[in-house]
Amino acid sequence: MSSSLVLYGYWRSSAAYRVRIALNLKGLAWENHPVHLVKDGGQQHAADYVAMNPQQLVPSLRDGEQVLTQSLAIVEYLEETRPEPPLLPADTHGRARVRALAQLVACDIHPLGNLRVLQYLERELGVGEAHRGAWSRHWIATGFAALETMLAGDAATGRYCHGDAPGLADACLVPQVYNARRWKLPMDDYPTIRRIDAACAELEAFRVAAPEAQADAPAP
Amino acid sequence: MSSSLVLYGYWRSSAAYRVRIALNLKGLAWENHPVHLVKDGGQQHAADYVAMNPQQLVPSLRDGEQVLTQSLAIVEYLEETRPEPPLLPADTHGRARVRALAQLVACDIHPLGNLRVLQYLERELGVGEAHRGAWSRHWIATGFAALETMLAGDAATGRYCHGDAPGLADACLVPQVYNARRWKLPMDDYPTIRRIDAACAELEAFRVAAPEAQADAPAP
Repeated sequence: MSSSLVLYGYWRSSAAYRVRIALNLKGLAWENHPVHLVKDGGQQHAADYVAMNPQQLVPSLRDGEQVLTQSLAIVEYLEETRPEPPLLPADTHGRARVRALAQLVACDIHPLGNLRVLQYLERELGVGEAHRGAWSRHWIATGFAALETMLAGDAATGRYCHGDAPGLADACLVPQVYNARRWKLPMDDYPTIRRIDAACAELEAFRVAAPEAQADAPAP
Repeated sequence: MSSSLVLYGYWRSSAAYRVRIALNLKGLAWENHPVHLVKDGGQQHAADYVAMNPQQLVPSLRDGEQVLTQSLAIVEYLEETRPEPPLLPADTHGRARVRALAQLVACDIHPLGNLRVLQYLERELGVGEAHRGAWSRHWIATGFAALETMLAGDAATGRYCHGDAPGLADACLVPQVYNARRWKLPMDDYPTIRRIDAACAELEAFRVAAPEAQADAPAP
């Protein structure tokens, strides 16, 4: 496939970060189209973006005429259309494991710490900053405790979440660790998560996908 | 495959409900193993269940020696191991659309209305019943507004979410509509969602998967 890929994302969005990693791991050329989630009242609410993504969330990926939404669906699409290198294992049980690890992050941790959720807690429920921080840390810690057990207790775990090649689970884990650090969650209880995160950080595909490396990130 | 399938679920769990629908749509024989999420301080926290599912959430699916977790990963696994009838379309773009619709529900609506989240709002943040109801309705309404647009505005939508055969997106939509009714969300703004939900309700696979049809549901 040679059609051009355009990612509509935001430097600090965990879900966009996952897709950046996947695009880079596959060695694909892609164009970054930043959608600022706060500026202009949130550019994700602008009519031209809503027409593309009625959820008014990032990321969206344009592949020629086709627009894809939902980060995990996007990665599965990339896996089907650009299979090399694979981000999912070849065997059914391995794929089920990697998808479960990815969904643990994408369904059970990340949605609870999303910007729109924190805004609702603040604006509608009057939850102060300290309690919003505790909320965010609680859901990451709860998820990471399970993730650590699932990674540490399984021989299928290798240098990365599954074996010795990076894939979909790593593309979800690393952005969530980034968020954990942002919320100052102590990471002592998650040695396997830390080890895998460090292994990923050695790879160019992950480094250039990092929030601070994006053109739309604020100057340091 | 002839190995026995055991579903560890809870009658009212939306995620378990999805898997029940998928198992039924595929015409598979499966055994129900209820895990009561409230009784005994939550049976999902019992040691033998935690050993199987470190997240202490339902559902889990046992297939012979293999234990699968995360509802969407389970459905993908069933799709790979028992491909007929398919719950995902044959074409890549169709699969991406169905997965995105499923994840809209499974990542962006359902996790916010989960029992453990409502318990946290109540116990840790002192959020009263009325505000918890408003919270639940808010996230369902936000997700349904986008889902309605995506369904109504796309020629790929048929009698069901994608074409004229039920599949993964319907298996996610119907349990979420069940939850919406439980929270008394007015459904007037979602005619396409209501139409598809009604079409699914005519199918045996959906009817016998309904919460009230489960052995562990309280007597009416």
